Amino acid sequence: MNREVYLVARPEPAVTPALFELREVPMPEPGSGQLLIRTIYLSVDPAMRGWIADAPNYRDPVPLESVMPGFTVGEVAASNHPDYAAGDLVTGRQGWRAWALSDGSDIDRKVDPEACPLTVHLHALGLTGVTAYLGLLEVGQPNAGETVVVSTAGGAVGSAVGQIAKIKGCRTVGIAGSDDKVKACLERFGFDAAINYKTCADLSAALAEACPDGVDVYFDNVGGPISDAVMERINVRARIVICGTIGISGSDAQGPRYQRQLLVKRARAEGFLVLDHMDRKQQAVTDLEAWLAAGKIDYLEDITEGLERAPEALCNLLAGKNSGKAIVRVGPEPKPA
Amino acid sequence: MNREVYLVARPEPAVTPALFELREVPMPEPGSGQLLIRTIYLSVDPAMRGWIADAPNYRDPVPLESVMPGFTVGEVAASNHPDYAAGDLVTGRQGWRAWALSDGSDIDRKVDPEACPLTVHLHALGLTGVTAYLGLLEVGQPNAGETVVVSTAGGAVGSAVGQIAKIKGCRTVGIAGSDDKVKACLERFGFDAAINYKTCADLSAALAEACPDGVDVYFDNVGGPISDAVMERINVRARIVICGTIGISGSDAQGPRYQRQLLVKRARAEGFLVLDHMDRKQQAVTDLEAWLAAGKIDYLEDITEGLERAPEALCNLLAGKNSGKAIVRVGPEPKPA
Repeated sequence: MNREVYLVARPEPAVTPALFELREVPMPEPGSGQLLIRTIYLSVDPAMRGWIADAPNYRDPVPLESVMPGFTVGEVAASNHPDYAAGDLVTGRQGWRAWALSDGSDIDRKVDPEACPLTVHLHALGLTGVTAYLGLLEVGQPNAGETVVVSTAGGAVGSAVGQIAKIKGCRTVGIAGSDDKVKACLERFGFDAAINYKTCADLSAALAEACPDGVDVYFDNVGGPISDAVMERINVRARIVICGTIGISGSDAQGPRYQRQLLVKRARAEGFLVLDHMDRKQQAVTDLEAWLAAGKIDYLEDITEGLERAPEALCNLLAGKNSGKAIVRVGPEPKPA
Repeated sequence: MNREVYLVARPEPAVTPALFELREVPMPEPGSGQLLIRTIYLSVDPAMRGWIADAPNYRDPVPLESVMPGFTVGEVAASNHPDYAAGDLVTGRQGWRAWALSDGSDIDRKVDPEACPLTVHLHALGLTGVTAYLGLLEVGQPNAGETVVVSTAGGAVGSAVGQIAKIKGCRTVGIAGSDDKVKACLERFGFDAAINYKTCADLSAALAEACPDGVDVYFDNVGGPISDAVMERINVRARIVICGTIGISGSDAQGPRYQRQLLVKRARAEGFLVLDHMDRKQQAVTDLEAWLAAGKIDYLEDITEGLERAPEALCNLLAGKNSGKAIVRVGPEPKPA
């Protein structure tokens, strides 16, 4: 039998494991032109909160009673597809299931298990890394010597943003939600300063100290009160990359009106969705691969064991309880040849 | 004696005539390299609310006990300056005074009284027109066929924005605060649709009807609840030009958080200050002159008589009581030669 995780209810607005259901279904058989993929790892991402909600988004909501979509790394178990053979390792969008049929259209590429750990294709070399790279460089446009502030700086996107900004010669300031994450920001991800927004007495004052020359680029993964504090410190011509809004609870959330600050500072706030920038993806992957190989980009992983625990891993991620890129191990890696 | 209007108190936060004081002072005498200018018209602008407030802004606040600054058209009465002669007409930044000494640095240019009415240098060919032109074209970047929404559409900047957008082949939708202004938008400024936000039952519904294809460019002169309604209707890749925030009462004003909408629509909100774009001013003036001459740009003026009534004119403007570009006539135009 195959196992799949279905979305069965909408967030109200909390995301809980009860929104999902693990089901046993018959094992699929690849037909002509199809292949069967055994999932090894699946990626759990903050954007999934938006995917499953019935609210305006950049994509249609995941239909109820369908398998939860998501990025995966898997092994080709059987293939009637000319481009793939049994034993190939692939990364793609096979979703939350132990075995997946594919016609190849939901495969991103074959991956080489010798080049880097398989999980890296779900973060530093996956859409996470590409999001950090293109969001920072294409929208944020940092210049050497400028100050770049990153929210959820200990997270998969945030930690990559900080390291790329550092490679580009910027001063990097991270905001994170635990002492462990602050420690990782400083010791592993090379941030010049990092702030625990939950325990610092006054985020605004802490930012003033960490950003003596103001904020030129704000890579924002949260929105909400953390962003309010950063917005107070932006410089003339600042760029705000809106990459995520996990800190905004609902579409009716209220907060300070930013327009006056954007006007006075002639600043720019722009929403960024990596899928709009796929024409630049190869450049991003090429640079990220080189930086990884050179040890200039580090990462942390938080691996949960078992497909059945994917909903729990998502809830932990949304609650900030993970420490590193949230990944679920669905099945074993193939033994080295 | 000369007459000057001094700023003597800060808004709290209302702008009232009591913040200003008309004073008689000795008539200035031009020294070496100086000229004496007799003010004919002065411009009253929404940005003045920001200039006189002791709040963060793109310029230092006007000092208390100093003459209120502002754009003017005047006649050179006497000159010891090599570039100017008595009888020349000039536009510049002489402020709220009947007579001004100048060393030439606060003069923008000599103007030709035959080319167009003198007042036009305070709006369509002044910073107002240049603001509309550069804000719309450089930040808004409208494409033919797109929908451009303008707030304070009956005002000096807004009416110019609408007409320039129309010249560029856009659908133009104006939002204004009186039936007279709506009428002017439709009949004089060529808007495809115009909405009285004060009397329409539901601004959001009115915008939905006026913008069946959504909003691609929002030229925002107000911020606040009017902008909230427009933001609901923006399209993917929309551009929001933040040019003014007259609808936001104070720095602690609260409203809906826009970040989610900016992200979902991958839209851009950017503050625009014309003074940052002066390298492109000449192109703007050249095009605006041609459009004026061709009858493609129309305007309305609201002229108040007498320097002593400049404070009242400003208060009326900030209350939306003007109908057309707010101008104060300080002295008579020179008789035609």
